[in-house]
Amino acid sequence: MKTALVTGGAGFLGSHLCERLLNEGYRVVAIDNLYTGTRAHMKSFAKNPNFTFIKADISDGRILNTETLRRREKNARRTSLCLCASVLKKTRFDEIYNLACPASPVHYQAKPFLTTMTSINGVLFCLELARKDKAKMLHCSTSEIYGDPLVHPQEEHYWGNVNTIGIRSCYDEGKRVAETLIADAIRETDVDARMVRIFNTYGPRMHPQDGRVISNFIMQALQNKNITIFGDGSQTRSFQYCDDLINAFRAYMKLPKAKIRAFFKKHKLGAPVINTGNPGEYTIKQLAEKTLKMVNDSAVRLRLPTSTSRIVYKPLPGDDPKKRKPDITLAKALLGWEPRIPLDEGLAKTIEYFKRLTANR
Amino acid sequence: MKTALVTGGAGFLGSHLCERLLNEGYRVVAIDNLYTGTRAHMKSFAKNPNFTFIKADISDGRILNTETLRRREKNARRTSLCLCASVLKKTRFDEIYNLACPASPVHYQAKPFLTTMTSINGVLFCLELARKDKAKMLHCSTSEIYGDPLVHPQEEHYWGNVNTIGIRSCYDEGKRVAETLIADAIRETDVDARMVRIFNTYGPRMHPQDGRVISNFIMQALQNKNITIFGDGSQTRSFQYCDDLINAFRAYMKLPKAKIRAFFKKHKLGAPVINTGNPGEYTIKQLAEKTLKMVNDSAVRLRLPTSTSRIVYKPLPGDDPKKRKPDITLAKALLGWEPRIPLDEGLAKTIEYFKRLTANR
Repeated sequence: MKTALVTGGAGFLGSHLCERLLNEGYRVVAIDNLYTGTRAHMKSFAKNPNFTFIKADISDGRILNTETLRRREKNARRTSLCLCASVLKKTRFDEIYNLACPASPVHYQAKPFLTTMTSINGVLFCLELARKDKAKMLHCSTSEIYGDPLVHPQEEHYWGNVNTIGIRSCYDEGKRVAETLIADAIRETDVDARMVRIFNTYGPRMHPQDGRVISNFIMQALQNKNITIFGDGSQTRSFQYCDDLINAFRAYMKLPKAKIRAFFKKHKLGAPVINTGNPGEYTIKQLAEKTLKMVNDSAVRLRLPTSTSRIVYKPLPGDDPKKRKPDITLAKALLGWEPRIPLDEGLAKTIEYFKRLTANR
Repeated sequence: MKTALVTGGAGFLGSHLCERLLNEGYRVVAIDNLYTGTRAHMKSFAKNPNFTFIKADISDGRILNTETLRRREKNARRTSLCLCASVLKKTRFDEIYNLACPASPVHYQAKPFLTTMTSINGVLFCLELARKDKAKMLHCSTSEIYGDPLVHPQEEHYWGNVNTIGIRSCYDEGKRVAETLIADAIRETDVDARMVRIFNTYGPRMHPQDGRVISNFIMQALQNKNITIFGDGSQTRSFQYCDDLINAFRAYMKLPKAKIRAFFKKHKLGAPVINTGNPGEYTIKQLAEKTLKMVNDSAVRLRLPTSTSRIVYKPLPGDDPKKRKPDITLAKALLGWEPRIPLDEGLAKTIEYFKRLTANR
């Protein structure tokens, strides 16, 4: 039986990954500080005997400092950091998935320091465990490392266009330096790490107040509020359904290190990193119209009143990328993977999730 | 009497800064891990009663963890971290200068992890002290945050073009995220920090084996070795003499916080950061020829044999920026500062330094 660690396991994507791994017969340990993740996301598998949840903060540099933690263990046996250390000491992980990090502007801008240090210390923590256990490690990077890109679509050789001192920088630069730490760790220690740059991903368990465009639009339509477009709505985004992304994670983790190394050497990339996203491109305006129509169609089917929401326009916030679309050539070639869920299908599932969520309140 | 902390105080620039501050009547505490810095650099002021040197590593996250260090103090009174903590506890700093970080590719590529973590933990360390003491803090960033720039010359609003996973990334991305941590700390805690992006700087006490172009060329000419140009020599660099940079540091630190805030607000920059460098542009080929000529002219004056060095060309290493030149409009406007030492004068002083250094071996 294989054992996996999922940091950010109570989050939107982390909880889907835990569920998938448990379904595939893994023993799963999830760590989360519950800043944006919630126990509700883990409800369907929380009682699975193969699942362990630890509330701990991987941005805390002491998490692997055994000297400090041993002392804590005596003094305060029940602190979460201490529990974490004791589970980690007992467990040998085969696979480590580093998903922890606030990922929506509304959350990461509220705690910029936590965000940057989650990226940095989270990576150091996972690298240390991966070396100790000779585990495979998958790190979640982000399309945000491309910033407001000057090339379109973005492929992995593109270096990005990111502001170091703006209000998005805590996330973007934290994720950039996390890639650097991993690339150097691979060169120095031969640790078996691999990275994905995740483009816009949506689905059930997204945070309803995360300020991101899909959750915003659905919640606004369901609550009969105006649907807010920032800017003129001509900026485009690509939308990947969560299950597609989890498929990419699993396919990537199944590959042996040697194959990965050879692939990236051939492609002249300094570290094993691939884009995962859905290249289908929609303007924000198209998405708003589609969401409103689908919410209304669903209401009509159920003979309920349709949404009274209207689409309104507001000024664009600082540093918002105007255009972003993944080039997934490498992921296709390496994993034989591509996204399969069309936007309409994913959106329907997500709308159903948000309807249940708002009904339960 | 004012008290200043200089991290990297045994380094090339750090030692010049310590000397200047002592001459201006400051009490100075210098911290350095002596990875690239040396005690020889501090020889002229090491016995000044107003000077304290601490060998410690600010990349060690525990440096300000008083709980851990108190315990260490009992067990091992003489460890440098412990000494460091006790000096820091006793001292109230008026000014903190964060210069610590290996800055030449040959040094930072030998210890990529140390390099990245010096940038990150060094900034956290200085920010913490600056908050505690309500001190002014000056952080040394670098023109490397612009990477291989797509605009020329570089001004502070430019976001840069940097590879996250290359062999220079440990320095570039470490320095980028250090700017991010400071920008967020200013927004969150109103700490009085300011930043300079330092372009190529040279002068006495440069490391003779740091692989940088000025030290390389002078050493090669003095030792009758071939003068190595990487690439075709058409790439340009700007060269700032160290004393000019120290003048900029001092002018910047004399400004009150309110004036700085107002200036950067007016210029729509997310944090107080200015370029410091010499905009005079030379091709690497021009520099090689000038260095060889000056070494030979000096030999002729002293009736010594001239150098037998010849200029040779080698392939360009990975990610080497092709062109870099500072736009110093902001520094001029804010500080009334500009570089004053011409390349010929600075180069002559640097050649004299390297001549003494090689003679003493």
